[in-house]
Amino acid sequence: MIICRARRLSLESGLMAERYIVIIAGGKGERFWPQSRAARPKQLLPIVGDSPLLTQTVERVKPIVPTENIYVITSALQEKGVRAVCSGLPKANIIAEPEGRDTAAAVGLAAAIIGARDPTGVFAVLPADHVIHNRKKYQSDLNAAFTAAAAAPVMVTIGIAPTEPATGFGYVQRAKPWKTIRRKTVYTVKRFVEKPDLATAKKYLRAGTYFWNAGMFVWSVPVVENAIAKFAPELDAGLQLIRAALAKGRKLGPVMKKVYPTLQKISVDYALLEKSDNVVVLPSTFDWDDVGAWPAVARHYPPDAHGNVGRGLRMVEQGKGNIVFSEGEHLVVVVGADDLIVVHTADATLVCPKNKAEEIKAAVKRVSTLTDGQRLL
Amino acid sequence: MIICRARRLSLESGLMAERYIVIIAGGKGERFWPQSRAARPKQLLPIVGDSPLLTQTVERVKPIVPTENIYVITSALQEKGVRAVCSGLPKANIIAEPEGRDTAAAVGLAAAIIGARDPTGVFAVLPADHVIHNRKKYQSDLNAAFTAAAAAPVMVTIGIAPTEPATGFGYVQRAKPWKTIRRKTVYTVKRFVEKPDLATAKKYLRAGTYFWNAGMFVWSVPVVENAIAKFAPELDAGLQLIRAALAKGRKLGPVMKKVYPTLQKISVDYALLEKSDNVVVLPSTFDWDDVGAWPAVARHYPPDAHGNVGRGLRMVEQGKGNIVFSEGEHLVVVVGADDLIVVHTADATLVCPKNKAEEIKAAVKRVSTLTDGQRLL
Repeated sequence: MIICRARRLSLESGLMAERYIVIIAGGKGERFWPQSRAARPKQLLPIVGDSPLLTQTVERVKPIVPTENIYVITSALQEKGVRAVCSGLPKANIIAEPEGRDTAAAVGLAAAIIGARDPTGVFAVLPADHVIHNRKKYQSDLNAAFTAAAAAPVMVTIGIAPTEPATGFGYVQRAKPWKTIRRKTVYTVKRFVEKPDLATAKKYLRAGTYFWNAGMFVWSVPVVENAIAKFAPELDAGLQLIRAALAKGRKLGPVMKKVYPTLQKISVDYALLEKSDNVVVLPSTFDWDDVGAWPAVARHYPPDAHGNVGRGLRMVEQGKGNIVFSEGEHLVVVVGADDLIVVHTADATLVCPKNKAEEIKAAVKRVSTLTDGQRLL
Repeated sequence: MIICRARRLSLESGLMAERYIVIIAGGKGERFWPQSRAARPKQLLPIVGDSPLLTQTVERVKPIVPTENIYVITSALQEKGVRAVCSGLPKANIIAEPEGRDTAAAVGLAAAIIGARDPTGVFAVLPADHVIHNRKKYQSDLNAAFTAAAAAPVMVTIGIAPTEPATGFGYVQRAKPWKTIRRKTVYTVKRFVEKPDLATAKKYLRAGTYFWNAGMFVWSVPVVENAIAKFAPELDAGLQLIRAALAKGRKLGPVMKKVYPTLQKISVDYALLEKSDNVVVLPSTFDWDDVGAWPAVARHYPPDAHGNVGRGLRMVEQGKGNIVFSEGEHLVVVVGADDLIVVHTADATLVCPKNKAEEIKAAVKRVSTLTDGQRLL
């Protein structure tokens, strides 16, 4: 079914469609407090590597598309920080949402902006804050996904082969092989599933046909806009005002400010992907880590003889498995403790056992209730 | 035996002898790193209470003797800090050792200085860094000890009734009642014993006749000088040069600089008290804590509902029994951890389980081996 429609519509999209990248830089990063803050979330920090994760994401896609085809969608709060780390991109390509309206609105906005420039453009939506070390494989997979999305009116998901029964991600279940592109098999999708419980996640892991939904999609402007019109008409009505303003050559700012906060707030997974029958999945061949919290960071740093990792001025005496980050010329000394997260910044320090890292987010909310606590968020 | 000698010699000392206080402020305070530093040890910090422990010690003795009779002996390294917190004392009363030569030399120096001014003076030697909340009882006990030391040529030890089988203190075993002063019984001393093992300490605790040697002594100049001449002739020879210079009206500084570093290095307990047969002990009636390390600090702060204590900007979420100190406007957040010591200062932070606090001292020594580590000591 999908295959027939795809072949028929591919002529409309055009096989040689121009390619665009849309990086979604909206994460709050409360889990990385105190290093991350509301205006300086994870993607703006060198949590792993020597540059902010957003900068690393931009650098990874630069060999795939011209710089002027790279867009970043962020929040008003983070705009300044994003501009600072994306100084190589055209200013107009950094777009700040007046307020967050979830991913469907961001994808619809991206389609509107790219569509105004190139009605048949194909664009990838990529998160800003993932860690990927193997750039070559990443670029190769992304190129294949672009080819797929240009060849047929499909929604290409890049699926991550699970390495553990994670309960923090949604999953994509593949169906049959759909197409082979550069020796990579792309599959039709049987279904999208939301975050499973552990038993279900274990079943998915054993089955071998489920992939993590990492929020990486490649599709054409018409495919996205058709899906929004069909499955999210309320969102489509709002976006139509933005498309109309852009079609008249008006500036994006004023219409965004007026319309964006009124857009339907819904995730792209729920609004489009779970409902569409033209979704395909390309299993990734690159390494991938969303480094969702401090314990995940440890995987990317060389451990000392006792499994301690970190960055900055630090010393662990008689302790193992600790994650110690210190900013500035400040020394952090851990004595006789194991498996702690210790993060020191200029104005706040966190101490938390690694197995309690999921509690950090709630603790950060409580910080706001302290006298003068707002300055620390 | 003691009693006869005491009665005979009391006429020489004089019953109405002038009283002096000598506060020994020499502790290194490595156990309170990073709040304590080489030039800012425990006694110069408000570890407990709102003023430095040395200031609290000075304030406690002010009602007992005139300000000009209060001396502080400290180290060259700490002199500046000591002068800063003892601005109410005469400048000449703050004496800096060119280098530490243990307590017998310090006591001998104090006797020389007071003796030059008042050959029959009676003086108390008191540590600078102990926590004592009940000032009235402390002053009452100290007054009784002064009376005893003025009435007879004895060495009065103020003994602390043990509350636990501590292995970190020396003990004094009392013998028979010697004298009752203001309804306080003073005992002759059977023996001084060095730091015991746990089994022995338990035995001492059960016996009820052993007291902690807290380094608090009251005695007259002649008693101290006689004992030094008899039991530490090598030290006496060095001190004689200081006494001679003072007798000639010379300044203390030059002779100290020349002679002090050559003095025999020995503790007053070992040099004098263990060998003398005129030692008596006055059991204290005041509360006492030498707050030897961070865990001891907890006893002096009001705990929250989960037994967490501390000072400064701090928050403990889902944790109990933690000690959290933070300096400046810096927030320390502990999430999901129990029984940790977390101490934040401007340039260094320590994290250590309470039951590993004795390892801190060794860790601090290791800090000196870090590049630029010296600045943190």
